[in-house]
Amino acid sequence: MFARDELERLAPPFRRNGRPHESNGEDYQHLDPVAATEAIAYDFLTKGGKHSRPFITLATYHALSQPESLSGNGRPSEDDGDVPSFPDAVKRTAMSIEIFHKASLVHDDIEDDDAYRYGHETLHRRFGTPTAINVGDYLIGMGYRLLSGESATLGSDTVADILDRMADAHVKLTEGQGAELLWRDSRDKQLTTTDAIRIYELKTAPAFEAALYAGLRLANRAGQYGQAVHDFARNLGVAFQILNDLGDWVGDDHNKLAAGTDVLGGRPTVLWALALEGLSQSEKSELVSLADNTAEAPGDAIERVRRLYERADVFGRAARLVDSHRSEAITVARSVESSRLKQLLLYLVGKVLDRPESASK
Amino acid sequence: MFARDELERLAPPFRRNGRPHESNGEDYQHLDPVAATEAIAYDFLTKGGKHSRPFITLATYHALSQPESLSGNGRPSEDDGDVPSFPDAVKRTAMSIEIFHKASLVHDDIEDDDAYRYGHETLHRRFGTPTAINVGDYLIGMGYRLLSGESATLGSDTVADILDRMADAHVKLTEGQGAELLWRDSRDKQLTTTDAIRIYELKTAPAFEAALYAGLRLANRAGQYGQAVHDFARNLGVAFQILNDLGDWVGDDHNKLAAGTDVLGGRPTVLWALALEGLSQSEKSELVSLADNTAEAPGDAIERVRRLYERADVFGRAARLVDSHRSEAITVARSVESSRLKQLLLYLVGKVLDRPESASK
Repeated sequence: MFARDELERLAPPFRRNGRPHESNGEDYQHLDPVAATEAIAYDFLTKGGKHSRPFITLATYHALSQPESLSGNGRPSEDDGDVPSFPDAVKRTAMSIEIFHKASLVHDDIEDDDAYRYGHETLHRRFGTPTAINVGDYLIGMGYRLLSGESATLGSDTVADILDRMADAHVKLTEGQGAELLWRDSRDKQLTTTDAIRIYELKTAPAFEAALYAGLRLANRAGQYGQAVHDFARNLGVAFQILNDLGDWVGDDHNKLAAGTDVLGGRPTVLWALALEGLSQSEKSELVSLADNTAEAPGDAIERVRRLYERADVFGRAARLVDSHRSEAITVARSVESSRLKQLLLYLVGKVLDRPESASK
Repeated sequence: MFARDELERLAPPFRRNGRPHESNGEDYQHLDPVAATEAIAYDFLTKGGKHSRPFITLATYHALSQPESLSGNGRPSEDDGDVPSFPDAVKRTAMSIEIFHKASLVHDDIEDDDAYRYGHETLHRRFGTPTAINVGDYLIGMGYRLLSGESATLGSDTVADILDRMADAHVKLTEGQGAELLWRDSRDKQLTTTDAIRIYELKTAPAFEAALYAGLRLANRAGQYGQAVHDFARNLGVAFQILNDLGDWVGDDHNKLAAGTDVLGGRPTVLWALALEGLSQSEKSELVSLADNTAEAPGDAIERVRRLYERADVFGRAARLVDSHRSEAITVARSVESSRLKQLLLYLVGKVLDRPESASK
C-alpha cells in the first residue's frame, strides 16, 4: 500500500518540485522550502512498518462486504488466493489510519529521543526537533484530510462517523501517551495495576478499535458490530501491551535488544504495578530506588529488578492477565454473527498475540 | 468563550480527577497521570489570546443567519448592542478553530524555544518538550473531535465539509511552518518575494479562510461566498503578515520588544526577499553574513540590516505590497451581495490591518 507510486496515486502530493534524497542527509538544503515538508513526510511514509492497522481496516471491510456464503473456508480474507481489490476511497481510509500511526511515531521518537526508526536515523536526529515536530503535525493533518476529502465517494455520514472515531482515538492516544510521559518524570513511581491497564486502554486499544471500526463503517455494519469490536479491541489491546511488556524481559539476540528497557526508559508497565502490589514495603523502596539509579550500572540494576519481579510472581501474574484478556477477546469474537468477521477476529487474536488460535476452537 | 465554565460546559472533560494549580509548578506530579494531559490542556486553553479566529466564525455565521433587513446600521454584529446568542454546536465549531490555533502555539513555542506565552512560562519550559509536544497533539485531536461530534446537531454534510477545510488549513499551515523552519536552517538564506508570499499564503491565510468558511458553512452559504472568502482571506492574510514584518522594525517601547527580531530569529520575510532583490551582489553578501553573525553584537548587526533595507527601499516597497493586498481584500469585500457580510469583511480589513476602513468607502 505504501509503495511510493501507490501513495502518490492515492494522495497526490501538492508541491512536487523537490524531494530529499537518501544518499545525502543534507540534500533538503537544496529543496524549495515550500515543498520540503511534504517531501520529507512522503519519504517517511514509504520507509517501513508492518501496516497492521490498515490491514485490519481492509480485512474487516472485505470480510463484511463479501457474500457470507463465500466464507466457508474458514480462512481470513488475505489468504483467499487472489488479492482482493478495494475502491480507492476504502484504500485512502486505511491509509489515513496508517498515517496517524506514522505521525505518532515521529512525535514518540522525539519524546523518547530514539535514534533510529525503520533502520534509518529518526527525523528529529536528521532534521532537528522543530522540523520533526512539524512533519508529525503535517502527517496528522494529512491523515484527516485523506478521509475528509471522500464525502463525494463514501457519503458524508460515513466520513463524519469515521472521522469522529479517529479523533476520539487520537485524543485517547495522547492521554495515554501523556500519562506515560508524566509518570516517567514522576519521583515516587507509584502505579496501580488498574491505572497501568487504563493507560493501555488509552494508548493501545483505541487504534485497534479505530481500524476495526473504519472497516465496519465502510461496510455499513457499524451499528451491528460496533459494541463487539469495542470490547474486542479493548481486550486485544491490553493483552498485546502486556505481552509486549513480558517480551521486554526475554531479551532478543536477533534484534540485539537488551532486557528491561521499559524499566530503563521509565515506562509505567503492568509488570511494575504488579511488583509494587506484591512486594513488602522495603522491597518496594528498593525497586523504586533501582529505577532512579539505572544510569550507573544498568545491567546490575536490571538483574535486581528481575529478581524482585520474580519474588512477586510478576511474570506469572502478567501471563495470566494476558490469558484472561485473550480469552475475553476470543469470547467476543465467537459471539459475532458474521462467520467471516468471526474468523478475522480470531485470526487477529492469534496474529497480534503471537500464539495462533485455531479457528475450530 | 474560553472562560473555564463555558469551556467545560461545551467540551466536558472526560477525566476530571485532578488539575494542575497555578501556584505550584510541580503540582502536576501529584495528579493522576491519566488525567494530567487533559488538565494541562484545559488550563492552557483558558490562559489568553485575542480569539480573533472564533470571533470571525461567529460573526460570519451571525451576519448570514440574520434577516438582511436588520443589517442597515452598517456596523459589525458584535456592536449591535445585545450580545448575540449562538447554538452550542456553532460555539463548539468556533471553539475548535481556536483550539487548533492554540495547539499550533504550543508546538511553535517549542520550535522557537520561546520562554513565555500569555505571560506564563511556555508548556515545554514548564513540563519538558515531550509532554508539551503531546499536549499540542491532544489539542489537535480535541479540535477535530469537538466538531466531529456534531453530526447529530449540524448534519454530517456540514460537519464533513468544515472538517475538510480544517484539515486542509492544517496541512497548509504545517507546510508554511515547515518552510520557515527549513529556511532558518538553510545556509545561503536565498529567498524570492514570490516564495515569501507563498509561505504567507500557507501559514497565515488558511486560518482566516477556515474561520470564515466555517461561519459560511454553518449558515449554509458556502456555495455562494466560498470563492470570495478564499480570495479575501488570501489577501488579508498576506497583508497582515507583511504588516507584521514591518512592525518588527518599529520596535515597541510598551512591550519592550527589540527591533529586528525576525532577522535574529531567522524568519524568511518579504522584507528579506525584497532586500535581496534590490541590493547589489556585495550588499547581498553583506546582508547574508549579517544574518549569520547576529550572536556577537545583535544591536549593531540589526542596525546594518536596517540600513541595507533602507538602501533597497524595502520598507516603502513592503508598505506598497500591504496596500495592494488591502485594496484587493476591500474590492472582494465590496463584491459580496450580503450587506451584512460585506460590512463584516470591511470591518475585518480595518481591524486586522489596524487601519480602520470606513464602511462608507
